[in-house]
Amino acid sequence: MQYRSIIRILGLLIAMFSITMIPPAFVALGYNDGAGVPFLLSFLLCLFIGFMIWYPHRKHRAELKVRDGFLIVALFWVVLGAVGAIPFMLASNPSLSLASAMFEAFSGLTTTGATVLTGIEFLPKAILYYRAQLQWLGGMGIIVLAVAILPMLGVGGMQLYRAETPGPVKDNKMTPRIADTAKHLWYIYLALTIACSLAFYAAGMDVFDAICHAFATIAIGGFSTYDASMGHFQSPVINAICVIFLLISAVNFPLHFAAMRGKSVSVYFRDPEFKAFIFLQAALVFVCFVVLLKTNTYDSAADALNHGSFQAVSIATTAGFSTVSFAIWPLFLPILLIFFSFVGGCAGSTGGGLKVVRVVLLFLQGKRELNRLIHPRAVYAIKLGRRAVPDRVVEAIWGFFAAYALVFVVIMLLLMATGLDSVTAFTATAACLNNLGPGLGEVAAHYGAIPDISKWLLITAMVFGRLEIFTLLVLFTPTFWQD
Amino acid sequence: MQYRSIIRILGLLIAMFSITMIPPAFVALGYNDGAGVPFLLSFLLCLFIGFMIWYPHRKHRAELKVRDGFLIVALFWVVLGAVGAIPFMLASNPSLSLASAMFEAFSGLTTTGATVLTGIEFLPKAILYYRAQLQWLGGMGIIVLAVAILPMLGVGGMQLYRAETPGPVKDNKMTPRIADTAKHLWYIYLALTIACSLAFYAAGMDVFDAICHAFATIAIGGFSTYDASMGHFQSPVINAICVIFLLISAVNFPLHFAAMRGKSVSVYFRDPEFKAFIFLQAALVFVCFVVLLKTNTYDSAADALNHGSFQAVSIATTAGFSTVSFAIWPLFLPILLIFFSFVGGCAGSTGGGLKVVRVVLLFLQGKRELNRLIHPRAVYAIKLGRRAVPDRVVEAIWGFFAAYALVFVVIMLLLMATGLDSVTAFTATAACLNNLGPGLGEVAAHYGAIPDISKWLLITAMVFGRLEIFTLLVLFTPTFWQD
Ligand SMILES: [K+]
Ligand SMILES: [K+]
Repeated sequence: MQYRSIIRILGLLIAMFSITMIPPAFVALGYNDGAGVPFLLSFLLCLFIGFMIWYPHRKHRAELKVRDGFLIVALFWVVLGAVGAIPFMLASNPSLSLASAMFEAFSGLTTTGATVLTGIEFLPKAILYYRAQLQWLGGMGIIVLAVAILPMLGVGGMQLYRAETPGPVKDNKMTPRIADTAKHLWYIYLALTIACSLAFYAAGMDVFDAICHAFATIAIGGFSTYDASMGHFQSPVINAICVIFLLISAVNFPLHFAAMRGKSVSVYFRDPEFKAFIFLQAALVFVCFVVLLKTNTYDSAADALNHGSFQAVSIATTAGFSTVSFAIWPLFLPILLIFFSFVGGCAGSTGGGLKVVRVVLLFLQGKRELNRLIHPRAVYAIKLGRRAVPDRVVEAIWGFFAAYALVFVVIMLLLMATGLDSVTAFTATAACLNNLGPGLGEVAAHYGAIPDISKWLLITAMVFGRLEIFTLLVLFTPTFWQD
Repeated sequence: MQYRSIIRILGLLIAMFSITMIPPAFVALGYNDGAGVPFLLSFLLCLFIGFMIWYPHRKHRAELKVRDGFLIVALFWVVLGAVGAIPFMLASNPSLSLASAMFEAFSGLTTTGATVLTGIEFLPKAILYYRAQLQWLGGMGIIVLAVAILPMLGVGGMQLYRAETPGPVKDNKMTPRIADTAKHLWYIYLALTIACSLAFYAAGMDVFDAICHAFATIAIGGFSTYDASMGHFQSPVINAICVIFLLISAVNFPLHFAAMRGKSVSVYFRDPEFKAFIFLQAALVFVCFVVLLKTNTYDSAADALNHGSFQAVSIATTAGFSTVSFAIWPLFLPILLIFFSFVGGCAGSTGGGLKVVRVVLLFLQGKRELNRLIHPRAVYAIKLGRRAVPDRVVEAIWGFFAAYALVFVVIMLLLMATGLDSVTAFTATAACLNNLGPGLGEVAAHYGAIPDISKWLLITAMVFGRLEIFTLLVLFTPTFWQD
């Protein structure tokens, strides 16, 4: 392991990350909200920490191997999450414990969107902006992670996407290729953010809210600047805009790139994951709408459609915005939405969960087993569109699924050991592991009231989810550390 | 499909099953409990139904194919479950609705052990005996199913056990081989039942209770003759006897056979599934004991050990007997026990759940994926003991796991649509799909208070669980019915 090179990179990273404390400081200046000093202090502190970590190792530029990659990726999220908590700790409003500050920062950076805060609209604007920005930056990180790094590391069957990135794969040329891929996709990400801000603004949000909510929407993060989340605006138009941009952001970003380069939307409809994603979202919206209508949960069909479609898409794409608390929806709807968050967004998007492509492959594998029972001697290949999926990829996805289930069960049981009831523990684990945000029970509104130890467990869940389990799990195996 | 031959077999089966109504009639006679007439009527009715079904098709003895096997196996459980409900419907005490009678019969025959009844000790002895006998007969059916039929059909990776049965596999010679395998294992089953009865009797149960509880123990069924279940006897010795026989019954029966034939217990300790099973049970008992002790749930360490070990083994082997309601145990223990019921007994035992061997293979596959991440070019085979497991088997087990999860989620959501809360729906689905019995929430004590429609859904879950999902699921595919 190239420890000193890895430490050097982390130092650089923290120093670079310090720059992200500047925009909130300007926001504080603009609104004169008193939160400027904490952000300036955070900037200096981060810069100093970064420098101190980087300086002793600055000469170490050894070539990194795949194994170093796992360590860097895991440390990237853990270190930036921790450093990102500094402003929350230095600020006087909100006044947060260490666990709460960490929870908020990790929740932002992993685009989970679970919050420990209440009275959000009374917080300094700088803090609100910083939370949204954390999600937006997290989203940029996720795209690189999902599109370039996880396929390279071969995590959870994502080597499936290795061949689709242009050019030959050469492990020793990985850095320029990652940078190239990232650049293209970040342009799309930026363009979507601008478009979303403008749309929100046109629909009636003020500039500040439009930017913050666009950040949180495109990152599928779900932080809002109000306790009532999107429900604050009471605007079906804003809800519809949010739904559209969530659906766009939950699609595989390289697919957007291919569609733009080919100037054709037919690219989308040739993609099996996209088709499954749209089908699932439509089916969920339909079910929610019908149940809400039949149970007379809302006064009018228009209301049922507005709230039903918004909440369905918000939860199923793992954004976690709300207009009303879906926890009070009738019958199986709350649990159905939580279950859909396990499916999540498409691979290579900012969404969380297992990812649609994996669920599609699990389904196809189940179908293959049924066919094999009926015709035991026939040979069935698993095909995604017209491409046969290698057995190795299918196996990796199964391993991913099992590891996901195992991590889920362990974290849920540990949460119950900290005193949470079963519904709270189940939904909080799902909400954090799927990078969704809101849960049910005690965490339906916010995560402020649960014990600090529970918060630490949920932070672990967020990182596990974002790093697709294996990137983190592999660090706990003795083999990883053997030379 | 050889429909007429299948109908002929079912007719014969029902006629044979009618004989099982005779022993309860004798019990009614002996105790003069007034339940004799319903059982005699049931006997005549079953005989008549069986004859009427058999007679028109009696000449049809076509050779059956594997595909017919799926239909026969599924119909076997569904038809006998339905016919088994007749005495519950004819009896005046208990007085049950159609759904409740069916629930009780299916719960018995699938050895689930969930009950809709309360005031069990005030029911006629004949009814109590009949319930225990249903479980015992169900257990006999399960052994044949698990050891001979599922391996032959290749359901859920159970072809793994195909090579272990002696002699060459010839599909057209399947009937004599199944009969031969079954005979040997039934002797063991019978011997265990006698030993368990004697042990219960020696520990203080009367003859009737000893036989009924031995039936329910060896079948890992969990029906008792008291509302308080095993807790009625307040005897640590009886609890210990029950634990020992549950552990024996949850072990792969061909392994018992091999140990007896080889006159050596070393056979057990060479079996990876057995070792994993014992390890898991011991770990669970240990955790329960420690948590109960630390939380001062019981007055003494002896009490904590007594109740802790009994409940842990009873739930984890999917028996479902209780001494106290584990629903009131502290922290994560109730949910932990429910989660362990997903693992269940060993393959080829009367236990339910996913089966230990499958969980072991899922775990090994997860470990292989971690190793592959670190050494992408190395070749790793999955080994069970010293035997390499074919990829086909591993794939089938994955398919099984996914189908299990899917059926679980669908049934749970449908249950919530019938009005059950999430804890009740989750644990009831787990309890019935894993053929466990007791749940939490509204079904912690019994299933009598839930709507009839919920009962039908749970009956479906029991049959899905017992038929290892695929045997039933395959009937719902169009391919199955194509010629
Ligand atoms: K989110
Ligand atoms: K049972």
